[in-house]
Amino acid sequence: MVDDVIRNIKVEALDQVPIEKQWIELVERKGIGHPDSIADGIAEAISRALCRAYREECGAYLHHNTDQGEVVAGESAPRFGGGKVVRPIYFLLTGRATKDFDGIIIPTDAIAVGAARQYLAETVPTLDLERDVIVDCRIGTGSTDLRDIFRPSAGSAVPRANDTSFGVGHAPFSETETIVKGVSAYIDDTLRKKYPVIGTDVKIMGLRDGDTISLTIAAAMVDRYCSGIAEYMEIKEIMKEQIGAVARNYTSRHVIVDVNTGDDPDTASVFLTVTGTSAEMGDDGSVGRGNRCNGLITPNRPMSMEAASGKNPVNHIGKIYNLLSTQIAQDCAAKVDGIEEIYIRLLSQIGNPIDYPHVASAQVLPMRGADAKVMFPEIEEIIDEWLGNTALITEKVVNGELKTF
Amino acid sequence: MVDDVIRNIKVEALDQVPIEKQWIELVERKGIGHPDSIADGIAEAISRALCRAYREECGAYLHHNTDQGEVVAGESAPRFGGGKVVRPIYFLLTGRATKDFDGIIIPTDAIAVGAARQYLAETVPTLDLERDVIVDCRIGTGSTDLRDIFRPSAGSAVPRANDTSFGVGHAPFSETETIVKGVSAYIDDTLRKKYPVIGTDVKIMGLRDGDTISLTIAAAMVDRYCSGIAEYMEIKEIMKEQIGAVARNYTSRHVIVDVNTGDDPDTASVFLTVTGTSAEMGDDGSVGRGNRCNGLITPNRPMSMEAASGKNPVNHIGKIYNLLSTQIAQDCAAKVDGIEEIYIRLLSQIGNPIDYPHVASAQVLPMRGADAKVMFPEIEEIIDEWLGNTALITEKVVNGELKTF
Amino acid sequence: MVDDVIRNIKVEALDQVPIEKQWIELVERKGIGHPDSIADGIAEAISRALCRAYREECGAYLHHNTDQGEVVAGESAPRFGGGKVVRPIYFLLTGRATKDFDGIIIPTDAIAVGAARQYLAETVPTLDLERDVIVDCRIGTGSTDLRDIFRPSAGSAVPRANDTSFGVGHAPFSETETIVKGVSAYIDDTLRKKYPVIGTDVKIMGLRDGDTISLTIAAAMVDRYCSGIAEYMEIKEIMKEQIGAVARNYTSRHVIVDVNTGDDPDTASVFLTVTGTSAEMGDDGSVGRGNRCNGLITPNRPMSMEAASGKNPVNHIGKIYNLLSTQIAQDCAAKVDGIEEIYIRLLSQIGNPIDYPHVASAQVLPMRGADAKVMFPEIEEIIDEWLGNTALITEKVVNGELKTF
Amino acid sequence: MVDDVIRNIKVEALDQVPIEKQWIELVERKGIGHPDSIADGIAEAISRALCRAYREECGAYLHHNTDQGEVVAGESAPRFGGGKVVRPIYFLLTGRATKDFDGIIIPTDAIAVGAARQYLAETVPTLDLERDVIVDCRIGTGSTDLRDIFRPSAGSAVPRANDTSFGVGHAPFSETETIVKGVSAYIDDTLRKKYPVIGTDVKIMGLRDGDTISLTIAAAMVDRYCSGIAEYMEIKEIMKEQIGAVARNYTSRHVIVDVNTGDDPDTASVFLTVTGTSAEMGDDGSVGRGNRCNGLITPNRPMSMEAASGKNPVNHIGKIYNLLSTQIAQDCAAKVDGIEEIYIRLLSQIGNPIDYPHVASAQVLPMRGADAKVMFPEIEEIIDEWLGNTALITEKVVNGELKTF
Repeated sequence: MVDDVIRNIKVEALDQVPIEKQWIELVERKGIGHPDSIADGIAEAISRALCRAYREECGAYLHHNTDQGEVVAGESAPRFGGGKVVRPIYFLLTGRATKDFDGIIIPTDAIAVGAARQYLAETVPTLDLERDVIVDCRIGTGSTDLRDIFRPSAGSAVPRANDTSFGVGHAPFSETETIVKGVSAYIDDTLRKKYPVIGTDVKIMGLRDGDTISLTIAAAMVDRYCSGIAEYMEIKEIMKEQIGAVARNYTSRHVIVDVNTGDDPDTASVFLTVTGTSAEMGDDGSVGRGNRCNGLITPNRPMSMEAASGKNPVNHIGKIYNLLSTQIAQDCAAKVDGIEEIYIRLLSQIGNPIDYPHVASAQVLPMRGADAKVMFPEIEEIIDEWLGNTALITEKVVNGELKTF
Repeated sequence: MVDDVIRNIKVEALDQVPIEKQWIELVERKGIGHPDSIADGIAEAISRALCRAYREECGAYLHHNTDQGEVVAGESAPRFGGGKVVRPIYFLLTGRATKDFDGIIIPTDAIAVGAARQYLAETVPTLDLERDVIVDCRIGTGSTDLRDIFRPSAGSAVPRANDTSFGVGHAPFSETETIVKGVSAYIDDTLRKKYPVIGTDVKIMGLRDGDTISLTIAAAMVDRYCSGIAEYMEIKEIMKEQIGAVARNYTSRHVIVDVNTGDDPDTASVFLTVTGTSAEMGDDGSVGRGNRCNGLITPNRPMSMEAASGKNPVNHIGKIYNLLSTQIAQDCAAKVDGIEEIYIRLLSQIGNPIDYPHVASAQVLPMRGADAKVMFPEIEEIIDEWLGNTALITEKVVNGELKTF
Repeated sequence: MVDDVIRNIKVEALDQVPIEKQWIELVERKGIGHPDSIADGIAEAISRALCRAYREECGAYLHHNTDQGEVVAGESAPRFGGGKVVRPIYFLLTGRATKDFDGIIIPTDAIAVGAARQYLAETVPTLDLERDVIVDCRIGTGSTDLRDIFRPSAGSAVPRANDTSFGVGHAPFSETETIVKGVSAYIDDTLRKKYPVIGTDVKIMGLRDGDTISLTIAAAMVDRYCSGIAEYMEIKEIMKEQIGAVARNYTSRHVIVDVNTGDDPDTASVFLTVTGTSAEMGDDGSVGRGNRCNGLITPNRPMSMEAASGKNPVNHIGKIYNLLSTQIAQDCAAKVDGIEEIYIRLLSQIGNPIDYPHVASAQVLPMRGADAKVMFPEIEEIIDEWLGNTALITEKVVNGELKTF
Repeated sequence: MVDDVIRNIKVEALDQVPIEKQWIELVERKGIGHPDSIADGIAEAISRALCRAYREECGAYLHHNTDQGEVVAGESAPRFGGGKVVRPIYFLLTGRATKDFDGIIIPTDAIAVGAARQYLAETVPTLDLERDVIVDCRIGTGSTDLRDIFRPSAGSAVPRANDTSFGVGHAPFSETETIVKGVSAYIDDTLRKKYPVIGTDVKIMGLRDGDTISLTIAAAMVDRYCSGIAEYMEIKEIMKEQIGAVARNYTSRHVIVDVNTGDDPDTASVFLTVTGTSAEMGDDGSVGRGNRCNGLITPNRPMSMEAASGKNPVNHIGKIYNLLSTQIAQDCAAKVDGIEEIYIRLLSQIGNPIDYPHVASAQVLPMRGADAKVMFPEIEEIIDEWLGNTALITEKVVNGELKTF
């Protein structure tokens, strides 16, 4: 147990069964077109667009929070060869933003609507934005406390925490975590390009049961790219095979892949959609209900309930500290030898500068045979350095270099 | 007074001061970008799009009514050279439409949203549809009564009136009416093409006071096409001159033209907008609150309160009978000699075939020296013929050949 | 033709067929629970509530306009003995109001929602406000021009016209007009109290065809007060009889009364509702689409398209001048002998004081044998007096003494 | 490691640092009036109301999901002695529900609106429901799969899992968890009754740092019950004292209580509200973003991201399995000797009966000196029994006996 007098950094050793030795491990990822991910993505796109506008117009990132918002499912009539969306998906943009600063009017509502529509165009290109989508906006007016104005140019004071809250992060990824993220990326980057029938709404549920990893995949298929039930079944087989192959690159454990297990091909009751996302029919989405900011849902790990997406990247603890603790954990795992697992928790106190958390806690589980205590100074230093550089997180977020979901 | 035994057609002579002899005459026209006209145009565009979809999918025009809807003004910050819309204009689409017919699902909500956005793109091209506009939809489900299905192909029975209601029409236009419509067309077809600074929201109020016709014009100017107050004042002068010249082609009376009389150039408080419509800031619009289906508001003439726009063009009396009576009046005025003024009123009875109105009334004011009675048979025949051909109105509406506002 | 040098008052004689001599006369009234009337009533209730709050908080009536708003029909499942509303009726409140004045914040949105709900509670008591109603609000922010502040206390300058617009009014009521209004009042004040089964949504269409006056009444029946089809048919008979008797008090012409002619008792397809208004199912409503401010729709008379309801009662011509011209016409008809019909038109010019209209025009049709010219000075005086006292209209509106629909 | 052949129950021993021995522990609770809790409460109230209606009308719990929904903050102007809500709080109800079953129409939208308003009336009585609240509804239509109909009367088959998902639970509560929940209950049940100035939106953040437990409390004060800054400061002192005393009943550790640390009494910038919830101004809320179904947010413990509130209590794994695993854990901790900590994880497979999870995993951390293996059979039996009785969870939820947040 080390205690940093300047910053309240506490590093301690953990003595627990490593995740890979636990019998059951669950890992989930909601793909980019899942309703919750769409909600997250829009919230974050709006925040980034606001930040850019604020920087351009006012030379500072002004107060805003768009970490709410709702995707209300539409209705659709999918059909092999191409069906139609019957009732558009409704997106409610909420939160608040500074609309007037020092005499400058920032068209926050128009920016939000524009950012949401552009994000949808880029992310779910199968959506017909002219017919299938309603983007509504009830963003309120926030006020920017002069104390908290953060000017990205030099000389600005470190922002103060907006809340008493915390962030958590861990590293490195377990095998199952690595596989779930890897498979998701493989589908997005490779498989969908080859098989556009695979929609963007792909949910991957990974279960490691001892040495068997089963991946249960729910993938919304796009009807216009699928001629009939035979082709549908074929693409499922292709997915099983290729995803299985990719997963096995990461592990020597036994891997099972299931795709759309709820299908009943006899009645042609299958996961067919017009747009490749279940938001078109029946599945609503909300900001902060999906992936944590490492891209995964990991009930075997400490998690924060805070939605990182859409929060302002300057002083909102629910965003900054979750991203920061994840970065710190990954940095420690990469640089410090002998770490089996590391968990970072950052706790703020409202009104204090964000680079001086109430507590910055690290828990290290050393690899078998390693001595945690030896690692403490190094870990502490890494934490200290990151805390001294929180503006970097802000910049990375604004530039879209850090994902929040 | 003639009474048609088959169709209840009543023609009578009027003995009153002709409109041109009355001291005061008021005529108003709200241009295509006025919030009320936008509401009308969207409502009608949706109805036409639904009709086309119904015809294509079901071979029949199904029940719908989209003759409601609201344009809720946004907020803007206009500036010479180009300002910005701050809060998008909100369009609420309402009404009801048949969504399910004989097992066929018609994506009415998506059609409505698509039609509204396309109409805006075509009509108010200065609007940035990706940022400045929210098109929301709360269209309910209507049911199509099998009795009332109207198949445009031969053999379909004449539809039954949906309501006990009436339509009115008159012809010919008075001088002031002709001028107001002519000036409006001139602005839309000629002036705006040359001077894009003139927005689509142009309201023309014509007042004939004895032999003086004054045109008070409120024209929203588009800021991106206007460098400053000097250019603004210049375009107002151009409008006054050129509109005055056009108006004088129609009349030998004295013509006065005023443009944006509320302006105060000293404080630069002028009618400047970002998009050329006051819907961007402060002025809401509703279906049925603007021009009647002859394109004018004419308090010196009988008018119907019914909104023609958005009503189904098959059996909705508020639409069919207003369009029909206007067509009949114009046809009579064109074909029958000696008509100073003619007023047509068609009254339906709910449930009766629309080609057999409860009463079809014509009131003729003969020109000085002409004998109204001589005209009765001819007028009666024209009415009878039009009533025998109501399907023509339906087709013209669906094809966009008949304007409703 | 008389011309007032101070105020531009023009009185002229009319030479036309009096309304009672015309063959066909149409008169319509939408009852208090008709969707359009509900929209009007809410708009006006909000304006009155805002006026009271402004007066109380700021000592002045501030700028606002709530003359828009939409009633979007719900869905219901009526059943003899008592059915249920399935989807609530949706009310969208729009317009704009001054929210901030001289440092005082006026909670306009909360006032609007409160006024709308209270109005519904009082007017359509059959509505369950906790379940059957959604009152939404998108009222924008208006700004109050200091020039236009009207302080009801002495010494305030006369407000300036907000627009170039006009108002029209006529008097006295024709027999058919009198009957339609009288029957409507009879239903509201007497019949419904005795027979609560009669809903508030009663539309009366009066047609005088020569010397026959037929009243076609569409009355929404309230299911909880009706045990079955027999009772339903019975109440229709009662209505026919009693309404016929009331109507015959006003006329010696032949009177026919029809109630709910679209009913088909064999299939029990009748005008049965849960709440007594068709807004519960299928019929939307808008401000300004129903009765004019004399309570009637009269296509045989000059009418204004302007919605009086919800407009600010201080300087909004569409409200003030319509109410004023109706008051003037009625006053003239009451006080000046020999008037068969009188039509008043008031035309404003934006920016001018409202007590000095651009033109105040009166057209008088004298009774047979009377000389119009003799009446001119008296009429002119009445007009002049009313124009000198426009603040009275404002006060009467705020106090709810003047109906707008 | 024990393996149940019938149900796939896996019990294993954990070897880790008990929570009480970890240096840092974080526990948070959002009080009943926190925007996220309000969203949860409404979602759950709607689900319960639907269940009761379904049971009454159809004798079965039909498919529905109302586990979404958004609280969009209003605007307010608090003032000592009583301020006002300026813009109402907007509640968007979403999700989907079966509206038509076997010819029976269930008024789901009206039920939802009614349940939401009633919940608000009971939970945040300081809200003026007639002015300060807009409850909007966009609940879609769900269909009930006949296979999944669950009739609470005997003989119904066990429902099938709606999804491949999981639930987690733990017991017993740590000291800090106990304190946070206890303090929250004390405020709700005792303190607020005595001091109505304490609003319902009370967030308690508990941090145990070694042997110091600090409670950081953010409590929205109700302005009408607070005469000025002095009384405000006094009530904070009272809260600190009394809450500290209550907390110390549960622990011998050092307890620190802070209330509204962000206050700046000098500028009277304090946490004053009109209604006692920050939803009135600036803070939105969403379903599933607050407390887990044990009433706490515990980042040191495994947590599920699933929102339990509003999900149907019949076959929705995200609800049933989270509630069930919490019940099982608590039951084990209560009945089995020697448990320091127990963690239950239930994993479903879509389409399988919910009483046969894919895996039911228990991880036991024995008390020092106890042998976990000895406990395995007993734990397994408890799990088996609960799984055999899932209908009990459903009933308890419908009857409001199980809290979800």
